[in-house]
Amino acid sequence: MTMGGQHPTLVNGEPADSLPIEERGFRYGDGLFETIKVCAGAPEFWDAHIGRLCRDAERLNLAQPEAGLLAAEARRLLGAPRDGVLRIWLTRGPGGPGYRPEKTAVPTRMLRFDPLTATASPGPAATSPDPAQEGVRLRICQTRLGQNPALAGIKHLNRLEQVLAAQEWDDPAIAEGLMLDGAGHLIEGTKTNVFFVCEGRLITPDLTEAGVAGVLREVVLAEAKRANFPVKIRPVRLAEALAAEECFLTNSLVHLWPVREIDGKAFAIGPVTDALARRVEAAAKAGRGLPERGA
Amino acid sequence: MTMGGQHPTLVNGEPADSLPIEERGFRYGDGLFETIKVCAGAPEFWDAHIGRLCRDAERLNLAQPEAGLLAAEARRLLGAPRDGVLRIWLTRGPGGPGYRPEKTAVPTRMLRFDPLTATASPGPAATSPDPAQEGVRLRICQTRLGQNPALAGIKHLNRLEQVLAAQEWDDPAIAEGLMLDGAGHLIEGTKTNVFFVCEGRLITPDLTEAGVAGVLREVVLAEAKRANFPVKIRPVRLAEALAAEECFLTNSLVHLWPVREIDGKAFAIGPVTDALARRVEAAAKAGRGLPERGA
Repeated sequence: MTMGGQHPTLVNGEPADSLPIEERGFRYGDGLFETIKVCAGAPEFWDAHIGRLCRDAERLNLAQPEAGLLAAEARRLLGAPRDGVLRIWLTRGPGGPGYRPEKTAVPTRMLRFDPLTATASPGPAATSPDPAQEGVRLRICQTRLGQNPALAGIKHLNRLEQVLAAQEWDDPAIAEGLMLDGAGHLIEGTKTNVFFVCEGRLITPDLTEAGVAGVLREVVLAEAKRANFPVKIRPVRLAEALAAEECFLTNSLVHLWPVREIDGKAFAIGPVTDALARRVEAAAKAGRGLPERGA
Repeated sequence: MTMGGQHPTLVNGEPADSLPIEERGFRYGDGLFETIKVCAGAPEFWDAHIGRLCRDAERLNLAQPEAGLLAAEARRLLGAPRDGVLRIWLTRGPGGPGYRPEKTAVPTRMLRFDPLTATASPGPAATSPDPAQEGVRLRICQTRLGQNPALAGIKHLNRLEQVLAAQEWDDPAIAEGLMLDGAGHLIEGTKTNVFFVCEGRLITPDLTEAGVAGVLREVVLAEAKRANFPVKIRPVRLAEALAAEECFLTNSLVHLWPVREIDGKAFAIGPVTDALARRVEAAAKAGRGLPERGA
């Protein structure tokens, strides 16, 4: 059975528009989420998203989600071949007061599909007609990312740093803000990962102390490897980043956005960015669809 | 009108047992909470809790709560002169996807009263008959607190660090775990603030980089000042803490717990702890009750 527009959300398999107030996802941000682009009813990079969700669940000591169940529920939600965004949340579930989860805690899984409309915009706002072609303008945020190896890389529900950073500007010509950690290393955008080309080599920040390890970041790293393009994952200083030859952003909804300016410093949209953008688009087309039923 | 046990929660003034799935408190932990001890229907340190909630709201750019409305709703919930715990949440409210809050966002306020029962235990578990007399045993947690001045001190809903730390042990003889920040400074317990007496001087960790500035911590600092007892708020190294003459914890539900052991190192329950515990109990009795209607 597919779902109509009335109840676009499934909570533990049932149509719902609310969560119990005892939900630990609300009380403590005790959970995870995935944001998945859907093209003509087919989610992109499904296996990578579910793989990341499972790895992150293990790091938070959350019970592993059943991948087959998630696929079956995504199939129910998607129905017609529409474009849009599929979101999955996995939380510790309802619980009594206290930070320590009860041993009887039953995780909550929640899936929601938003067809592509003005209210489900595909990621950071931008004024240029096609940011993937024209490139985007960025700023450097004042709000820093705290460093914590126990949480670094995880796409969890503790996102106040991003909420504060995103309030620092509202100029729609600025598509994204870059965030540093407390030590002054450049980590990522508020909702994107960032790559640089320095002296012909691709560099992306190390995320062992802070940041979210995005699925599209993994896609870019895999494509660079397949193309035998040298890549380095390491701490990146802001001054070094601003001196780079090329810069681009990635996330699951926009795929890859070339950067044409960071706080007034202009960047050319260069050959490495172009080549990786083409590879990412091809990988996204190849990586569409849900696994076969029962697979 | 007072509330029965059927709907112990008010969401924006209406009895409710759920929150919309679009609630940003759930999506991003974009909100705050207060935990208030209630004795015979009277909340303790009401003004201090509401004052902290307002200060924290300002730091998150959340619309200020109406103090009079919160008091009126607390009065509705509390009704009969029962002991228990009153919790208040203030969040950014429902919103579309995206970290930046919409300008039209309407905050959610939620109040809930849990009468004192086995399921609403007054804070950290302890086996001793009266931890306030016998003292409690602590451990040092492996999970560290990330440092971020933008969030330090705020009682916000991003609490995954505490959730991970609280899962490190389940021995009920250990009442609480102490947490260090990434730089190795001792900051607080998972749900308590911590004080030490070193060479006759009261010391509590500086919370400008990490931690929650608890209402009972403020009460202890105020009482120490009233007693002309020397206090120092500054970074505290673990080795220094373990060499202290006395140690105690504070939170709104337990008030003040003397510490008798940290990871095998014994502490005496000394005169400073005793004197401050008596003062805190007196302040709690004096600080009971809601403001007059219309005040």
